Amino acid sequence: VSDRTLCVIGLGLIGGSLLRAAGGAGWKVRGTARPGTNLTAARDAGFDVSSSIEDVLAGAAADDALIVLAVPLPAIAEVLPVVARHAPDCRLTDVVSVKAPVAAAVARRARCARYVGGHPMAGTSTSGWAAGSATLFTGAPWVVSSDEGTDPLVWAQVATLALDCGAHVVPAGAAEHDAAVARISHLPHVLAAVLASSGAGGGPLALALGAGSYSDGTRVAASQPELVRAMCEGNRDALLDAVDDALGRLGAARGSLASTGALEATLRAGHQARLDFEAARAAAGEKGTGTIDLSARGSMRRLRELGHLGGRVVGLQGTRCQFQR
Amino acid sequence: VSDRTLCVIGLGLIGGSLLRAAGGAGWKVRGTARPGTNLTAARDAGFDVSSSIEDVLAGAAADDALIVLAVPLPAIAEVLPVVARHAPDCRLTDVVSVKAPVAAAVARRARCARYVGGHPMAGTSTSGWAAGSATLFTGAPWVVSSDEGTDPLVWAQVATLALDCGAHVVPAGAAEHDAAVARISHLPHVLAAVLASSGAGGGPLALALGAGSYSDGTRVAASQPELVRAMCEGNRDALLDAVDDALGRLGAARGSLASTGALEATLRAGHQARLDFEAARAAAGEKGTGTIDLSARGSMRRLRELGHLGGRVVGLQGTRCQFQR
Repeated sequence: VSDRTLCVIGLGLIGGSLLRAAGGAGWKVRGTARPGTNLTAARDAGFDVSSSIEDVLAGAAADDALIVLAVPLPAIAEVLPVVARHAPDCRLTDVVSVKAPVAAAVARRARCARYVGGHPMAGTSTSGWAAGSATLFTGAPWVVSSDEGTDPLVWAQVATLALDCGAHVVPAGAAEHDAAVARISHLPHVLAAVLASSGAGGGPLALALGAGSYSDGTRVAASQPELVRAMCEGNRDALLDAVDDALGRLGAARGSLASTGALEATLRAGHQARLDFEAARAAAGEKGTGTIDLSARGSMRRLRELGHLGGRVVGLQGTRCQFQR
Repeated sequence: VSDRTLCVIGLGLIGGSLLRAAGGAGWKVRGTARPGTNLTAARDAGFDVSSSIEDVLAGAAADDALIVLAVPLPAIAEVLPVVARHAPDCRLTDVVSVKAPVAAAVARRARCARYVGGHPMAGTSTSGWAAGSATLFTGAPWVVSSDEGTDPLVWAQVATLALDCGAHVVPAGAAEHDAAVARISHLPHVLAAVLASSGAGGGPLALALGAGSYSDGTRVAASQPELVRAMCEGNRDALLDAVDDALGRLGAARGSLASTGALEATLRAGHQARLDFEAARAAAGEKGTGTIDLSARGSMRRLRELGHLGGRVVGLQGTRCQFQR
């Protein structure tokens, strides 16, 4: 029994990259997917994969593996009872882009699982095993859910997986994660779709003139709409808040433009926000470093505070998290 | 007197690039700007420039040069009377991002000028002489106004300048141009500002998680807000229509998400629009080629029809425009 044994359910972009990245980092990895191109490609690449989820889960239970749900949100409800039946006590995580709905599904359908949610923030505009790579997670944020009551040992193992894959860990409560990604991931997809349609509404002349700003602003609209839809609709409540926020800001811009002709407030606030975003990326680690001991009281609260302030966990030794702010 | 003599007023990103590109293509070029870094840099680069707009315009009148207004929209009203005084009969064009307001200003303040508006669709996120280059216009669309009553000879000279700078010419009526750029240039700036602010409203956690979609969708918010503001506010009426279009689409998405939880219509339409945009860029010229004779009756109408359908002029021999669709 190794403490770095991984069982990946689903071998698409994320699951397939996970198999490669964790395997490359020395984890014992095994995977399962429905028969199809992803499964065939993984097998051809030499990985230990099988279309029998039951067999793979039985092996995971025997090895005390960390199980990763790497299927789209709509398939989670279907997979969880199978996990509960064949590997009821295993440590469990996922890579779905919303955390509260998955946690609720786990509580309903796999009560005994030792679950800690995860979300590696990497790649959505392509999909499938072929689009993945061992370096997909390099430098990416990987959210690990840090709500009260989280088992620190499971948290540590999920964080170790993320770090071994080259990511850094951003701790957050499930609801706080969902609110944040609604704003910086799901809302951008909705606005890109709106912008693409508004531009195309200008006919061939408008499209012929579309360059930098239109091309950048609509890039993610090239993503597979089914995947984007599952992601956005799965975070409905938080996304509604984000859309309302954007509607309010766009309506205010409209009112100001119509009445006084001025867009200064809108453009200046947006410019400052973009500069803040660029500065936050450039300054990671500059505000200080430190450690949080997972075995200490209040460790989950401290982790959430760290993430709330824009910090990240960049290393883990035993139960001690090294963080940067 | 050469038929390729150019007088550029304003030596920022566009004016400075124009001096370099047209000069490199064999035009006799001269420029003017207020004393400052742009003027100094142009002089240091060996160009014939002066801070005396009067002297430069007198020279342009003597040489029968094509004069280009390369100042921001708010400065146009100030420069036009000077042009009218010192070079009243010269051929005149501009590079401002709106066309109807400039045409109206010319009609008011420089009635005798032989004016045909222009708009090279290149670069807005940086500014100043130093940010320009001789290749800024390579492969870019350059709109040349083609309203009824346009003097074909002036049109031809503006088009020649655009082609010599490596651009292709997109013919359009001034109002049609303004409506199109509102959708694919000005609306993207407004939405980028809204998205940047909505994301930053999620605090440091949200910014720490911002990646592909947020970064792409907010990129143009890094542009100088003063320049963006002048551009957007100068196209107020058309931009209001575009913002209302976007508000309607975003409101519809909100309603659908709130009622049935579905975003399919929004995302599918946006995805198709993005594919149409990519296809339009890839397919330029595939639907056919031909010529339009500028000296024939109805040539401006034919040019506008060409632009309306997504076509472009790619060559000019005498009065014959070679076009692609």
